[in-house]
Amino acid sequence: MMADDMGWGDPAYNGNPVSKTPNLDKMAAEGIVFNRFYASSPVCSPTRGSCITGRHPYRYGIFFANVGHMRKEEITLAEALKTKGYVTGHFGKWHLGTLTKIEKDANRGGPEDTADYSPPWENGFDVCFSTESKVPTWNPMITPPKTAGGVRNRIPGEPYGTAYWTGPGHKATENLEGDDSRIIMDRVIPFIKKAIKSHKPFLAVVWFHTPHLPVLTGDKYKNMYKGQSVDIQNFYGAITAMDEQIGRLRNYLKEHGLYNNTVMFFTSDNGPEGKAREGRTQGSTKGLKGRKRSLYEGGIRVPGLMTWPALIKSRKTTDIPFSTLDYYPTVLDILGFTMPDQPEPIDGISMLPFIKGNIKERQVPIGFESKKQVAFMNNRYKIYSPDQGQHFELYDIINDPQETTDISTEHPDIVKELSAELSRWRESCKRSLEYSDYKQDF
Amino acid sequence: MMADDMGWGDPAYNGNPVSKTPNLDKMAAEGIVFNRFYASSPVCSPTRGSCITGRHPYRYGIFFANVGHMRKEEITLAEALKTKGYVTGHFGKWHLGTLTKIEKDANRGGPEDTADYSPPWENGFDVCFSTESKVPTWNPMITPPKTAGGVRNRIPGEPYGTAYWTGPGHKATENLEGDDSRIIMDRVIPFIKKAIKSHKPFLAVVWFHTPHLPVLTGDKYKNMYKGQSVDIQNFYGAITAMDEQIGRLRNYLKEHGLYNNTVMFFTSDNGPEGKAREGRTQGSTKGLKGRKRSLYEGGIRVPGLMTWPALIKSRKTTDIPFSTLDYYPTVLDILGFTMPDQPEPIDGISMLPFIKGNIKERQVPIGFESKKQVAFMNNRYKIYSPDQGQHFELYDIINDPQETTDISTEHPDIVKELSAELSRWRESCKRSLEYSDYKQDF
Repeated sequence: MMADDMGWGDPAYNGNPVSKTPNLDKMAAEGIVFNRFYASSPVCSPTRGSCITGRHPYRYGIFFANVGHMRKEEITLAEALKTKGYVTGHFGKWHLGTLTKIEKDANRGGPEDTADYSPPWENGFDVCFSTESKVPTWNPMITPPKTAGGVRNRIPGEPYGTAYWTGPGHKATENLEGDDSRIIMDRVIPFIKKAIKSHKPFLAVVWFHTPHLPVLTGDKYKNMYKGQSVDIQNFYGAITAMDEQIGRLRNYLKEHGLYNNTVMFFTSDNGPEGKAREGRTQGSTKGLKGRKRSLYEGGIRVPGLMTWPALIKSRKTTDIPFSTLDYYPTVLDILGFTMPDQPEPIDGISMLPFIKGNIKERQVPIGFESKKQVAFMNNRYKIYSPDQGQHFELYDIINDPQETTDISTEHPDIVKELSAELSRWRESCKRSLEYSDYKQDF
Repeated sequence: MMADDMGWGDPAYNGNPVSKTPNLDKMAAEGIVFNRFYASSPVCSPTRGSCITGRHPYRYGIFFANVGHMRKEEITLAEALKTKGYVTGHFGKWHLGTLTKIEKDANRGGPEDTADYSPPWENGFDVCFSTESKVPTWNPMITPPKTAGGVRNRIPGEPYGTAYWTGPGHKATENLEGDDSRIIMDRVIPFIKKAIKSHKPFLAVVWFHTPHLPVLTGDKYKNMYKGQSVDIQNFYGAITAMDEQIGRLRNYLKEHGLYNNTVMFFTSDNGPEGKAREGRTQGSTKGLKGRKRSLYEGGIRVPGLMTWPALIKSRKTTDIPFSTLDYYPTVLDILGFTMPDQPEPIDGISMLPFIKGNIKERQVPIGFESKKQVAFMNNRYKIYSPDQGQHFELYDIINDPQETTDISTEHPDIVKELSAELSRWRESCKRSLEYSDYKQDF
């Protein structure tokens, strides 16, 4: 499960004084709370790609939001799990390619952009209920008032210009009113129900649109924030509505005896919307520097939760850095298999040794790149460059998570070592981008 | 006009003792002979992209043969000239994207590779008669004997598994027997005839398959090389057959009073096939180091001819380096216009100032990159790296075109300066690849 543009400081379990997220709080009380969980990218599409491939999106050309597409040569988590008999579903925001070649849809769909056509059903998902990109968080098919934020060139009350696609040429036409997270979960639950009925294991990738702009919600949720500004009522109201659906899913799994042995992850695709914190862009980084689009901590450190009662018996927190890159290798490690012809390298690592208590530090650094920014982070230190590696800042993230003090001049040796590793990693990404990782007959 | 895998030493005008290319020789006698003409890449697809965009193919993700596709955001020469009332045609090998989403065709076409669908008719060409990639140079729709080279997994005499496409879903079905260059020219001439009839200027991009493997020809052309080996008979016979069609085109233009004011270019997409010079891989680099796939001179220095009797009154040779990147800016400069929303930077330069006698040196270096090799070349010096810029060799190309003597240790200053420029150019390509050059609303 992934929220959209939810900041590290937004869930109540992480100290937000305003938000109400009782179900995320329950996950936090029962599972692992990652104090340093990182979105692979500070924007939407690339992080999503990392979740289902374990590979940095610069390896396959998803550099930014609305850019590139999931290459057919990449192996997705859904494709991998299908080889083990899983049924697979994608629900919510896709943003890894266009979903139609016929009509203009969302940011890129339609006859103008057939090159980026790469829908869930061509990437291993048996079932989907997916939008190309963003939709309003309440009445997702209808253009909301401009106060909801991010509304351009459309008239409130008219169609928003996008669709939930369920297959090639197939759009959902019913049950599209009200809370978008509920609309999504209304498709997830029947998918799981069907999996149970057919005695099959399942993978459900649930990528909520909340709280990305346009963000608004219904009275029920706004009323839970009485006394706050209208913007806060809508922003955190939408988050609470999403949280309610997470609770609904948890309860469903419990009622059907699946909870104990289901691995659940929750995170966000990047930090909160990067504009000044005003109007509807209420998301909080909890004091971290930078917001969405930045490789400072505020842009990439996001909520990170994992529950799996069969193995994780009680609450556990960690300062070891983990990443959305780690989902793919973790799931394959849990199931104990590797994919033939796996494009390599995989940037993520399995979390399983950590979950079993066998590691105390991350052995493999995490590389970041977005537009002109690059960053590279090991267990303690992070180098950051605003200009593609011409100049570096150095931060001790353990002792200075706010990145207040650049210590690059005190520790040129650390900068040198990390920047050399970063260079090698960037060259490796470049080779991947140039199709070196695929076994092809040219 | 472009040959395929024809080496710098293959045409008779350039000193080849065996080959018969009377029509290329006539072009050489009447126009400009470029002694240093460079294919932008040492392999097929990227060079083709450079010809019609003026931009290095790493900017838009065509890294190698059968990789990537012409992005819709790029402006092609055909798209540019259409804005000036030109009719535009593409004839021969395309190799800049797949031509069908329906059936398996050539290397990549069909339902498996819709992401790379980018046919001539979606890139500004009104008319086309185009193959996705290679075909045999004689009876192009039929699998030749294995001795023709490059024949795998097919049975001689059966269909070769590819088609000449003339539009979406439309394949040519007639007049596909015999010499492939004649088959192509049989479509070019009527295209020009129609342009004349409708009083419109025209752009004809003619990309022959000759002498790429599988290479073979008919008895008429083989007999012209009696006494030579069967391999030479076929290889140079096919080149002579192509040359004959170039003569046919020249004659047609002369007969219709168009020759004087038609700009004609001839080149090859890269050096000769890179395997050992045996069997059907007869192409000659005239002693230059390296062959196809190499950034040494043998892989990228190719025949370069230009005729334009209205402006170029007599034979002229030059040692100034020019490139396939220069076609686009040259043609736009000749016609005196620029494209609105032109993706920039353009790597090529206009040849017009040189043609008019106003420059004696190339002011803008030429950058090369292919797989792990990078190179950067100014008027006299060339740096070459086999490992993406970790180590550099330096050659004085004017005095040592064979690249026998690496002078990097004698001239560290030149290496330093050129490698710094190369780094900046590579970063610029990377930014382009990440969609920075397009005016898009994300």
